[in-house]
Amino acid sequence: MRNVTDSTITQAVVRSFDGATDPRFKHLIERLTHHLHAFAREVKLTPDEWMAGIDFLYRAGKISDEARNEFILTSDVLGLSSLVDMLHSAAGGTERSALGPFHAENSPMLAVGGDIKRDNDGEPMLVHGLVLDAKGKPIPAARLDFWQAAINGKYWQQDSEQSPDNLRFRMVTGKDGAYAFTTVRPAPYNVPYDGPVGDLLRAGGRHAWRPAHFHFIVSAEGYRPLTTEVFFEDDQYIDQDAVFGVRESLLVNPRRNTDKALAQRHGLPLPFHSVEFDFHLSR
Amino acid sequence: MRNVTDSTITQAVVRSFDGATDPRFKHLIERLTHHLHAFAREVKLTPDEWMAGIDFLYRAGKISDEARNEFILTSDVLGLSSLVDMLHSAAGGTERSALGPFHAENSPMLAVGGDIKRDNDGEPMLVHGLVLDAKGKPIPAARLDFWQAAINGKYWQQDSEQSPDNLRFRMVTGKDGAYAFTTVRPAPYNVPYDGPVGDLLRAGGRHAWRPAHFHFIVSAEGYRPLTTEVFFEDDQYIDQDAVFGVRESLLVNPRRNTDKALAQRHGLPLPFHSVEFDFHLSR
Repeated sequence: MRNVTDSTITQAVVRSFDGATDPRFKHLIERLTHHLHAFAREVKLTPDEWMAGIDFLYRAGKISDEARNEFILTSDVLGLSSLVDMLHSAAGGTERSALGPFHAENSPMLAVGGDIKRDNDGEPMLVHGLVLDAKGKPIPAARLDFWQAAINGKYWQQDSEQSPDNLRFRMVTGKDGAYAFTTVRPAPYNVPYDGPVGDLLRAGGRHAWRPAHFHFIVSAEGYRPLTTEVFFEDDQYIDQDAVFGVRESLLVNPRRNTDKALAQRHGLPLPFHSVEFDFHLSR
Repeated sequence: MRNVTDSTITQAVVRSFDGATDPRFKHLIERLTHHLHAFAREVKLTPDEWMAGIDFLYRAGKISDEARNEFILTSDVLGLSSLVDMLHSAAGGTERSALGPFHAENSPMLAVGGDIKRDNDGEPMLVHGLVLDAKGKPIPAARLDFWQAAINGKYWQQDSEQSPDNLRFRMVTGKDGAYAFTTVRPAPYNVPYDGPVGDLLRAGGRHAWRPAHFHFIVSAEGYRPLTTEVFFEDDQYIDQDAVFGVRESLLVNPRRNTDKALAQRHGLPLPFHSVEFDFHLSR
């Protein structure tokens, strides 16, 4: 490659990976090289701009730890995470959305109809629905893994006032595929704004807000696990999610509910708000 | 953006940066988003592959420190650093090449004709030439900043046996624009192979060798500073540089020299090897 020039270097880099044994890896690295070089050529990237990019990644590395991954956040605010989710939402299944950084293993088990609002401040709410297959048939013994932020916009990991099992649970649906629980309506929150991603957002005149949401991982034997979020249509940030996680099909409209029997069964005051959302799993 | 889909998300991300006040930043982030998304779409990037990419960056962050920047190395082995150099080599000037990680400030001053081989093992060599403008006119009082690896392929930073001022210097040319010094021929060396970049190279069936080279930063009042490397045409890795830094115009062919007067002036045995290379600076 002594004669490599700006018009031959892309091919030279691609060829240097000729010895790769995994054809998918080879394809990915070839296309990544192609797009990376096309970007640099198209904008005629300067050495100073290149260095600013390197510095961004270096600082992202320094601020990242097990509880915070600034590279995921970078991917989130550039819409890449959502695009990958969208490219892999299965036909007929509920759309995927961001896992985010706050999922924790081994949440407490909760029976169908149980309560997690406990002593949390905020608007009480009944959340219920069905877990169905792509044809609309209920899936018995489906598993839900749920987590949400509190009314102050914080997850338990960010807030020493919350107990470690606050506002999260795992649940197994009955034979009818139904799930139900009572909780409080979560609040919008800021993604971390104090690192290189914060600098990027500020340079772009962007805020760091996400609309409030519930997080779910829904799974069942023989079906593809689904990671998704459920949003509130009347949220002030619904059209400005900093990480592009909102999907039209994932919006709910909390309903003013006056069903006395339901209120009594769940220990809710009248009227109460309820949200109904069905999940569709694909094979 | 509640109705964002895989075909509208790129535009949604671009629009989110509408508030950017710096037009160049806005352009860069728009084109970066475009290419990043085009890559993900084209290869239909899976969530697992996305996670492998995030993990690569996370590990690169953890292994990086002030003495080692794995992000620069990533850019190097993907040819991006060289491409940026090539895009900005000025017409009429000597081609740019990699700065690399081993440049140190404040190298000792050396008079024109001085020696830096001292007690280093290796083949003695006279290196000389001129610093010229783009039209070939000598530039008086041009500044050279030089560094190279020893015969074991290591820079002083990597080798406790070398003194901190070994094999590096700064020099000011005379009125004739001439520089000259005696040194030893450097050896090829490996870029770091023990981090995520090493994993990438191994997955691609690639080695980590760079052909031996001299590093120069050449500058003069009123001219654009030039960072470049000079390589040996007969080096075994000349066509396989792991970081794509070799340029045809930066190759030298050490000459078997029998000039008695020159040998005597520089304290060299007869015959000795000499390398002649002229630098062209652009305004």
